[in-house]
Amino acid sequence: MLTDRNPLPDLPDPRIAAQLAFVIEVDRLKTVLRQSPLAAADRRENDAEHSWHLALMTILLAEHADEPIDVGHTVQLVVVHDLVEIIAGDTPLYDDVGAQTQEAREQAAATELFGLLPADQATTFRALWDEFEARETPEARFAKAMDRLEPLLLNWMAGGGTWRTPGVTADVVRARKAPIAEASSALGATARAIIDEGRRRGWVAEPEHTDGARSAAPPA
Amino acid sequence: MLTDRNPLPDLPDPRIAAQLAFVIEVDRLKTVLRQSPLAAADRRENDAEHSWHLALMTILLAEHADEPIDVGHTVQLVVVHDLVEIIAGDTPLYDDVGAQTQEAREQAAATELFGLLPADQATTFRALWDEFEARETPEARFAKAMDRLEPLLLNWMAGGGTWRTPGVTADVVRARKAPIAEASSALGATARAIIDEGRRRGWVAEPEHTDGARSAAPPA
Repeated sequence: MLTDRNPLPDLPDPRIAAQLAFVIEVDRLKTVLRQSPLAAADRRENDAEHSWHLALMTILLAEHADEPIDVGHTVQLVVVHDLVEIIAGDTPLYDDVGAQTQEAREQAAATELFGLLPADQATTFRALWDEFEARETPEARFAKAMDRLEPLLLNWMAGGGTWRTPGVTADVVRARKAPIAEASSALGATARAIIDEGRRRGWVAEPEHTDGARSAAPPA
Repeated sequence: MLTDRNPLPDLPDPRIAAQLAFVIEVDRLKTVLRQSPLAAADRRENDAEHSWHLALMTILLAEHADEPIDVGHTVQLVVVHDLVEIIAGDTPLYDDVGAQTQEAREQAAATELFGLLPADQATTFRALWDEFEARETPEARFAKAMDRLEPLLLNWMAGGGTWRTPGVTADVVRARKAPIAEASSALGATARAIIDEGRRRGWVAEPEHTDGARSAAPPA
């Protein structure tokens, strides 16, 4: 742990000592780099910045949720949702190989990381993370929508960004962004308009098969 | 605005268009550098990372609030609390000159920044920021406590950090950290123990007047 380098002094309350060691440990989230380019600077985004941005977006955009959501709870989901990447690392959205092992790596990371907390809080934090991942509550669906919308906006500002990943086409981007429409039809329509314009500008590749080819009769 | 460089396409909903332009604009918070050194990397922290860290700490440490707090609301306060620094810049805690103009600069910045939002949301965001600044609710007091506790932990990990600012002594640090005890006696005691140990190690300077000199009779 980071506190091994410089242990906290003896503190009056051992529970607080464990909590503060965790607070220090998660400073590492600021060093987990994502693929997304910032809009405001010429460098990639890190997970702590990303998590903050989702929290802000949740407060601002909650009104567009198709089902009512508890904003404060949704903000907690996004604040916690990427913590496991301190151990598991970031798996880019268009990394199909990494995606195959992502769930197993992140489950192991959750057990290890949240295991640093007092037992009751390990359970609480694990529950927040599990809720986000399962997408079974309106809050988790909205949190996931923010997680997909934020890099879309950064890619737009970069004139393509990770849309230019080899093999990625507009169809692939639309499929990966489907969780936005699952939480908010208005934001889903917005995302589609942005992707469509990105395609028109050549910032994201055309699908390999055109609409015409796809609607042709299959070989007999 | 950042979107002037690359305007969003025509979107179906003009309200959403304004909201997304704001989402992109606040990407700048990731470029506002604070004085605090990270624990996990050899660089200074930025405001977005800091705001995320306070949100995480709020979820983890809310149980130590002396008055019950609404965790979800408190998290919203910390997510919004530094936004004005996009325009006003960060004022370091031990910068007495900057502190003299801080309130006026930040008030003007709030008017300008939140003015980018649809009017009803300008009011909502301004209210969150005003609540944080006024420290009149238990949630705002706890949010401010997190804002003071987080850099204290980073300074500890750095073996002094901004405690080494010229003119800063243990008395000054204790006075600046008083908001922690105003929200949580347990966390206040913890902060004092950390500062005391920092003083013993020479990471923060002794007060100019020793306890002995202070208790001596004043000149007749």
